[in-house]
Amino acid sequence: MAQVTLAVDAMGGDAGLPVTVPAVAQLLQQDATVEVLMVGQPVPLAAALRDAGLAQHARVRVVPASDIVTMDDPVAVALRNKKDSSMRVAVNQLRDGQAQAVVSAGNTGALMAVSRFVLKTLPGIERPAICTAIPTRTGHCHMLDLGANVDSEAEHLLQFALMGAAVVRALDRIEAPRVALLNIGEEDIKGNDLIKQAAKLLQEHPALNYCGFIEGKGIFDGEADVVVCDGFVGNVALKTMEGTATMIGHMLRTEISSSWLKKVSGLLALPVLRGLKKRMDPERYNGASLLGLNGIVVKSHGGAGVSGFLAALEVAVREADRNVPALIGATLVNKSDGTA
Amino acid sequence: MAQVTLAVDAMGGDAGLPVTVPAVAQLLQQDATVEVLMVGQPVPLAAALRDAGLAQHARVRVVPASDIVTMDDPVAVALRNKKDSSMRVAVNQLRDGQAQAVVSAGNTGALMAVSRFVLKTLPGIERPAICTAIPTRTGHCHMLDLGANVDSEAEHLLQFALMGAAVVRALDRIEAPRVALLNIGEEDIKGNDLIKQAAKLLQEHPALNYCGFIEGKGIFDGEADVVVCDGFVGNVALKTMEGTATMIGHMLRTEISSSWLKKVSGLLALPVLRGLKKRMDPERYNGASLLGLNGIVVKSHGGAGVSGFLAALEVAVREADRNVPALIGATLVNKSDGTA
Repeated sequence: MAQVTLAVDAMGGDAGLPVTVPAVAQLLQQDATVEVLMVGQPVPLAAALRDAGLAQHARVRVVPASDIVTMDDPVAVALRNKKDSSMRVAVNQLRDGQAQAVVSAGNTGALMAVSRFVLKTLPGIERPAICTAIPTRTGHCHMLDLGANVDSEAEHLLQFALMGAAVVRALDRIEAPRVALLNIGEEDIKGNDLIKQAAKLLQEHPALNYCGFIEGKGIFDGEADVVVCDGFVGNVALKTMEGTATMIGHMLRTEISSSWLKKVSGLLALPVLRGLKKRMDPERYNGASLLGLNGIVVKSHGGAGVSGFLAALEVAVREADRNVPALIGATLVNKSDGTA
Repeated sequence: MAQVTLAVDAMGGDAGLPVTVPAVAQLLQQDATVEVLMVGQPVPLAAALRDAGLAQHARVRVVPASDIVTMDDPVAVALRNKKDSSMRVAVNQLRDGQAQAVVSAGNTGALMAVSRFVLKTLPGIERPAICTAIPTRTGHCHMLDLGANVDSEAEHLLQFALMGAAVVRALDRIEAPRVALLNIGEEDIKGNDLIKQAAKLLQEHPALNYCGFIEGKGIFDGEADVVVCDGFVGNVALKTMEGTATMIGHMLRTEISSSWLKKVSGLLALPVLRGLKKRMDPERYNGASLLGLNGIVVKSHGGAGVSGFLAALEVAVREADRNVPALIGATLVNKSDGTA
């Protein structure tokens, strides 16, 4: 494994330092080669590193940044008024070759805008996209776009497909990832105009293993490695998954507390329920990639805990190790002759 | 309760008669006033009614129809080549004043096209929409459109909002239903152009209690009585809910069978798991309304069982009892002076 240096926005997310620092401590412990630039306000950051026993760590370096992008900051504020934010300075480290990947739990819109402004997009990419792994019955798939773009055109969906396929080839070592377009199943309409046009482009592209349409319920069946959609639709789908899982958890608790018999039965079922909770744990799948940029930027959920932020750090390390942006670039350059 | 007559497409759905006939038998037993026109092929239908003890039932009448619209029939085939299908003849009964509502488990696209062709839309409605109740933590909300329309315009979303609000007023007896627009939460974009335009229309409409945007995960929080979206997005969201719930059920079974301890623990937890299954049961929420037509048409899931089809029949009875199309019509007529 090549030497990887991560630039971590230490202040980002709902919690900031209490989450980012312990997660970095765990990463350093489990990965003997990774180096970390901790970007943030020097005083509280130094204190947090000291508390975590990282003050003198050989593979940790502090990069000072005076400001913080809050979760509610409008994009324009993050971009124009907070040029010394931990988020911006972390992305600058990547641009300047000091790090191979950035991880931030800061607000998505700001992170995308700052990354796009500082790093620029890869040649051939008009719009970066947000991509994450989604659990399926047989393992996982990658889905994009999850909210970076609305009102996508067919050509953008094609670019998302190529980027998603490159990620799966790199991370999952699947040579010809099965790419599906998210669509609806009603017979009379079979999708909107966008989907019909995109289907044609994906079908005809020589470098894609296009396997057709997939419905919302098919995402979890393991029949596709890459699920492509517009960011509006993808974001609604992702949030609906979260909402449904939360709702079922709520139903389970209501059910257990509904009678004495069920309270006892629920206690006896604890090993099963704990196991289920672990399987459903969104922290395991935390870490969405901002694809299509000149560099690796991984977004952690703002509310992620230590294990979730660690998962996002691991995504960044894997993508850096396999140089995902270069693979995406190669796919795009070669798309016309089908040799990607 | 007023006298209601339902026209039931007895042949529709994956199973047809083995589901529709027992469900009708249950409805007749629990509701002493409802009458049913069973529409279908006379020979098998008569046999099924005889088996269910309904052959001589005073409140059941057979209406013959020689053909069946299959689940895979293209809309054009259902509309042009199958004019004597059980679906079409059932809708004809409604048009001719023989019934106050139609229930079919046949294919959605065909049912929408046939209903629209035979019944026409209400004045002021350009596009009918599919609407169903979705469980929330506090009860349920109604969501539309779920797939009748793609590429909706802002004015259509306004019509969906008015129709959804009328349904909730009628069925849930809520005077000023809270109406929300399904949107994504990213700061930088806050929705596509469609959503921005629609938000303005809903905000300004005097007859609507518009409460703003809702995210995919917020659907289940009980903060809105009506959730409005384009049919493409709504269909993806609905199918994603189904997929997530199925996936969690699968995880639970995998978890229980993962060790002897968990198998025993799972057995002991049976009362809780059965209760959860019942709460999650999609059959309870079966029965989607095709709104905006000159008449009540309720679509059952094609794969629904007897209890699911019964739930759809009950939706039809409630809508007929409260004359939902008239309420929708009144809302639209009065929309300019805000007295709806």
